Amino acid sequence: MAELPDKATAFIDWYLAVVDAANLTDKRYGVKGMNVWTPYGFLARRHLDEVMVREIEATGSSPVEFPALIPANEFAKEKEHIKGFDAQVYWVTKGGLSDLDIPLVLRPTSETAMYPIFALWVRSHRDLPLNVYQIVNTFRYETKTTRPFMRVREIHFFEEHTCQVDEAAADRRVRSNLDAFSQMAKALALPYVAVRRPEWDKFPGAAYSIAFDIPVGTGRTLQIGSVHHYRENFSRPYGIQYEDSDGAQRFVHQTTFGLSERLIGAILAVHGDQKGAVFPSAVAPYEVIVIPIPSSGPEPGPEATAVEVAERLRAKGLRTHLDAGDERPGAKYYRWELQGVPVRLEIGRREATSRTATAVDRLGRKAVVSLDRLESEVEQFLGDYDRALFDRALAKFREEFRVVTSLDELKGFSHVAVLTWCGSEECGHAVETAIDGGLLGTPESELPLGLANPDRCISCGKVGDVRWALAGRPL
Amino acid sequence: MAELPDKATAFIDWYLAVVDAANLTDKRYGVKGMNVWTPYGFLARRHLDEVMVREIEATGSSPVEFPALIPANEFAKEKEHIKGFDAQVYWVTKGGLSDLDIPLVLRPTSETAMYPIFALWVRSHRDLPLNVYQIVNTFRYETKTTRPFMRVREIHFFEEHTCQVDEAAADRRVRSNLDAFSQMAKALALPYVAVRRPEWDKFPGAAYSIAFDIPVGTGRTLQIGSVHHYRENFSRPYGIQYEDSDGAQRFVHQTTFGLSERLIGAILAVHGDQKGAVFPSAVAPYEVIVIPIPSSGPEPGPEATAVEVAERLRAKGLRTHLDAGDERPGAKYYRWELQGVPVRLEIGRREATSRTATAVDRLGRKAVVSLDRLESEVEQFLGDYDRALFDRALAKFREEFRVVTSLDELKGFSHVAVLTWCGSEECGHAVETAIDGGLLGTPESELPLGLANPDRCISCGKVGDVRWALAGRPL
Repeated sequence: MAELPDKATAFIDWYLAVVDAANLTDKRYGVKGMNVWTPYGFLARRHLDEVMVREIEATGSSPVEFPALIPANEFAKEKEHIKGFDAQVYWVTKGGLSDLDIPLVLRPTSETAMYPIFALWVRSHRDLPLNVYQIVNTFRYETKTTRPFMRVREIHFFEEHTCQVDEAAADRRVRSNLDAFSQMAKALALPYVAVRRPEWDKFPGAAYSIAFDIPVGTGRTLQIGSVHHYRENFSRPYGIQYEDSDGAQRFVHQTTFGLSERLIGAILAVHGDQKGAVFPSAVAPYEVIVIPIPSSGPEPGPEATAVEVAERLRAKGLRTHLDAGDERPGAKYYRWELQGVPVRLEIGRREATSRTATAVDRLGRKAVVSLDRLESEVEQFLGDYDRALFDRALAKFREEFRVVTSLDELKGFSHVAVLTWCGSEECGHAVETAIDGGLLGTPESELPLGLANPDRCISCGKVGDVRWALAGRPL
Repeated sequence: MAELPDKATAFIDWYLAVVDAANLTDKRYGVKGMNVWTPYGFLARRHLDEVMVREIEATGSSPVEFPALIPANEFAKEKEHIKGFDAQVYWVTKGGLSDLDIPLVLRPTSETAMYPIFALWVRSHRDLPLNVYQIVNTFRYETKTTRPFMRVREIHFFEEHTCQVDEAAADRRVRSNLDAFSQMAKALALPYVAVRRPEWDKFPGAAYSIAFDIPVGTGRTLQIGSVHHYRENFSRPYGIQYEDSDGAQRFVHQTTFGLSERLIGAILAVHGDQKGAVFPSAVAPYEVIVIPIPSSGPEPGPEATAVEVAERLRAKGLRTHLDAGDERPGAKYYRWELQGVPVRLEIGRREATSRTATAVDRLGRKAVVSLDRLESEVEQFLGDYDRALFDRALAKFREEFRVVTSLDELKGFSHVAVLTWCGSEECGHAVETAIDGGLLGTPESELPLGLANPDRCISCGKVGDVRWALAGRPL
């Protein structure tokens, strides 16, 4: 097996090599940027979906599914939105052997599919809030370089769409989404920063956008999700209004919350190392791999003990795979490390005799677990692993930010820049030019950097009404 | 509320009314035949998917997901298959603002998406069997009348695709699929018959097809799933071959197994009645609805007791909904019966005082459950309900078949016809003409009809090599 490229100095090469080596996707499909979810990759995705479903349903959101095809006339109703998307949508123009009367757009996102129906569902203030979400695939005719999970043309997508009585209620829904995301990110052991995007980088049609960014080394960042407040920008063209308790007709205020398979890319990018992928237990296709080390001798030997261990852990609900194949144990260790399994249980003659298993986690920490207390000890070992994984990620996360005090420092900057900004578009663009990247926006949560109050704008020098902002080079 | 049309005499009207009244889908979307999965309908679908996933994974099949778009050149490789589908596919011809070099088909089924990749995955006999499945949406430009769940243009679809070493192994996989389906149908309380389709009604590209049919009244039938043996019909054009242990290159034999949201239509059609939908507990969006009947008096009264009951049942893993709204109890009973919830728990003053709940199942059977043994008694009540539901369905199923001994009897026949057939296409078509419907094929399992050996063909009168066959009018 070839060694992986160096993560620190050749991140993209390393990333692509890990995705291949861990067998998470097959890129050889006949349409560029549309990849095959292999069984192993699909399981990671299934468990990611479970995390998203659990957290969003805990906030009172209901699952729905709207059609994938959107009639051209509905698609065109919100002008900013269509401007933002029309260069990157797929068009269905033929059905069977004839041209369609009205061409159909393969959904790039579902505002324009959902909102004509929302206008039918929402009649009275008693119908509000309407909080629904769907997990579907979306399609974007991506012209930039595609990369598995990070930028693809068929995207596994989570989108919540809500209707609220007014702007304040919609603001509260945005906050609720930020909280839900913090729970999801915790399960994925992903430190991130929530950033209010500048005006010129909002979602097409949004009043404001808050995005979740993670640093991925040398000043690059990856947006891993976003929440948008639409005010009445869509409800007016789509006619989503309700009769209030005072009898007045009012337009709803809307919000959306979007996530995608990019979270799998983020997990790989943040946790992966020179040995391959590293999965937090919440999304790991298998949480535990059980490997017998064959030897002859009295029964029950390693194989029978491994079968017992795997069955007991499965009965406890732990996703456990028994690798009883005829490869050498070392080759198995190597492969399952590459594939990022959190915990490996080795069972040789010594373990079978002493009724133990040797546990090794993906961070290389070892423990001997007693089969008497197998289930509880493995669960504890997994919990410790997840905490250690998060701690390691948080330590790296903190190192990726640096405060800068002049535009000159931004040239070739190899960290995410933390800087002071007056809020003007002019100064924002000056920062973007200086760093050859983007002004990510203003943090919505405190950064773990012990910052003082901001004083003067890094660009124009203005004092007062100055805020902290982040700048980096989005991947 | 308007009464439902009569199921016996106006089945289709009744069906459409039930789908609407139970709020399972919204048909007002802007593309005909593409419907919205409402929250309630989506939950039924989620639980249906869980049944399919559980049973297919128990047979060693792994989940995958292939792209929704198929390049035109791959789509055209198997000639019978493309002939069977080209009049009903959607074509993507534009990406962004320009025409695509190679048009893309929105998958109507995934043979042509998967098999070029299978050719890469299968190298050696050690890679076999390859058993994978996906649950995705497929798209068909349907020209017949569309009906929710039964015939739609965007179809929620289950498809297993397998590669086997030879024809016998593929035959065994077909049998394994038939067994898996029998488990699924049991969970759905659906009696069905597995029928080997005649040559002229095979899936495009299949060597043979076995379909699952259910009678839906007055001689009509609904195909609710199918299993196909492809032999080498696809593996040759797609080059899916392996090196056998003797060093020879051999083409794999393939099978597929297809199911869809039509199973929800089947559940409605079979179990539904004049009060609305009726769900078996395995797929019911809610298994239990808890309804407090408000009254003033000492605490804990009905409301507090209902909260306790709902929380305890949820903790036990039962899908439980507490309906504490301010409608009259009678209106709630009516609505949840319409929506097909298996068990209703009524809690009034009397129940709160005596620490009981009055349980009523969707078949109208009553019991008093003690809160001391709430969880176990409700589980038992649900189990009894599922068995009674199946028994009721089986009794109706048996009544829908009638043996006929002459073609004359088939004119305007109001049952599924059981007849003797020599196997010739000519006699098959004679049957189809006589019944103004289809020869469904030959049953693969014994029919619950106590049939003797078949004697002579109903059409040509030939004796010997004669088999039982079914004929009906597919919906």
